[in-house]
Amino acid sequence: MPFKTKLTRLLSVDHPIVLAPMGGVSGAALAKAVSTAGGLGLIGASYGNREWMTAELAGMESFQKPWGIGLVMFTVIKQMELLHLALSYRPHVVALSFGDPAPFIGPIKDAGAKVAVQVHDLDQARTALSCGVDLLIVQGCEAGGHSAGRSSFPLIPAVRDSVGESIPIIAAGGVGDGRGLSAALALGADGVMMGTRFAVTSESLFSGKVKAHLVAAQAKHTVRTRAFDIVRGIDWPLGYSGRVIANKFSDAWIGREAELQTCRDEVGVVYQRAVEQDDLDFRAVWAGEIVDLIHDVRPASQVVKETIAEAEKASLAVSKFIITE
Amino acid sequence: MPFKTKLTRLLSVDHPIVLAPMGGVSGAALAKAVSTAGGLGLIGASYGNREWMTAELAGMESFQKPWGIGLVMFTVIKQMELLHLALSYRPHVVALSFGDPAPFIGPIKDAGAKVAVQVHDLDQARTALSCGVDLLIVQGCEAGGHSAGRSSFPLIPAVRDSVGESIPIIAAGGVGDGRGLSAALALGADGVMMGTRFAVTSESLFSGKVKAHLVAAQAKHTVRTRAFDIVRGIDWPLGYSGRVIANKFSDAWIGREAELQTCRDEVGVVYQRAVEQDDLDFRAVWAGEIVDLIHDVRPASQVVKETIAEAEKASLAVSKFIITE
Repeated sequence: MPFKTKLTRLLSVDHPIVLAPMGGVSGAALAKAVSTAGGLGLIGASYGNREWMTAELAGMESFQKPWGIGLVMFTVIKQMELLHLALSYRPHVVALSFGDPAPFIGPIKDAGAKVAVQVHDLDQARTALSCGVDLLIVQGCEAGGHSAGRSSFPLIPAVRDSVGESIPIIAAGGVGDGRGLSAALALGADGVMMGTRFAVTSESLFSGKVKAHLVAAQAKHTVRTRAFDIVRGIDWPLGYSGRVIANKFSDAWIGREAELQTCRDEVGVVYQRAVEQDDLDFRAVWAGEIVDLIHDVRPASQVVKETIAEAEKASLAVSKFIITE
Repeated sequence: MPFKTKLTRLLSVDHPIVLAPMGGVSGAALAKAVSTAGGLGLIGASYGNREWMTAELAGMESFQKPWGIGLVMFTVIKQMELLHLALSYRPHVVALSFGDPAPFIGPIKDAGAKVAVQVHDLDQARTALSCGVDLLIVQGCEAGGHSAGRSSFPLIPAVRDSVGESIPIIAAGGVGDGRGLSAALALGADGVMMGTRFAVTSESLFSGKVKAHLVAAQAKHTVRTRAFDIVRGIDWPLGYSGRVIANKFSDAWIGREAELQTCRDEVGVVYQRAVEQDDLDFRAVWAGEIVDLIHDVRPASQVVKETIAEAEKASLAVSKFIITE
């Protein structure tokens, strides 16, 4: 049981590794696999789809290990019944992203769950802390999917200095293996959240075609854009964009976002059909910069196990650089 | 003498800490202070100004510790006599940035110096390796001044995997203290380059006014722009922009770069006068995201000493998280 940190103690998990709640990718199977392996599995309820949530949450009934669910605040705030739906399954953790956490904290704590809030800068971190959250997820722009402008390496220690030592910090964005876990701990985090790496596992809900695409992709193929948000009609707050593998759709619309907005309805129909056909030329395949480090599809349990082993190796290698005088 | 890595062995230095060769900021005094403290001081010859270089290089004569000089390739390639001027002072290392290293390698090696090349992605890293460089500087976009698009956290391990174990890697961009050094080593680097932190030292050539401005600044005040390159008439290759503390000049011209290009001559005169007056509303004050971590002006020797002490503390803390089963 290596890497006992204040995160593992707070959550009663074996390893400081958290599954990113990737919408439509982190379902019950993946969340259970990560939690069973000793990490914390988070289901990705994303923008909130009652049917999808109900189906996946049903898979968590009678599951005994700690697990949780991730919600996007700026959409769920308009349908708070989805929060209560989630809480009715008694998750150990609710991870909130993108929005104002204040209205969510009370109901989650009342249900006996821990509240994690994802933050992207020092101001958001201090606001979340003052709301009484239990955990901070500090996300850098290396991440797949949506993020803001700061990079993980300098952001993690700055948030730590800003919020003090007592609250656990989960580093998200840029972490693809055990070297990343070791580095995140050195920078002042207490654990890591991994998305793209877990998206390319046997249990991920991505199709085999998408997983193979991610195995072949490199960070240089990723771009950050709002084009996929526009075509899907999702009204993201300013300051965020999503990192995705570039494709014909992003090539066509990056730089023409205002035009896309005007013809959203027509293009949206074509886009939706392409998504249903899992068409890689059109559909968004969210991916972080650590896609460089992914060379195969693995069971999630193997990712957890190897990340821990590699982190231990990396940490011991660094401590061996230290020459006692 | 803690943190003995293949970087410290190759360069015969005590500490794996390299001063970024910041143009007009890293002069002889700062380079000597860093080298005397056990790191590697690099003079920032930048775009190449013979008078400035001659004055600062004269300060390195009879200096006994390892030291070096940084050159911007895309400008120095047009005036190779500046490379030979630099080599005549017998630096131990020449650090090359931004351009094709091939024409530089032979003359530098013939002069008995080591060649370091700064790279921003995997393709550049492999190209530099095939040119026969001795060291790679892997720079993330968190850096102050010019950089490309990748972030340090996922880039360092990806470059390490791409170039193999034998070549020393210096992580640049995002490193502001010992936590960053410890993390960089965990990610697969052999040492770090620090710019912004050393720019705010007693020996830096920045004015006291600029240093105070940097102490007060936060990462959220930084922006990346080509506007200062345009007004200075420096023809930067595509794909690079410079991170700077936002000011009236950047506020006015970001988003209007094409217009600035057309009135460059008139605006350039005003800009040059503002620079001579050290006017913070106009002049570029380059700064990396780690400006969040800077709270005072210190002697460079103290930065080196504290970075090492803090890295040791951070590394030992991480290794203490490991619970032996």
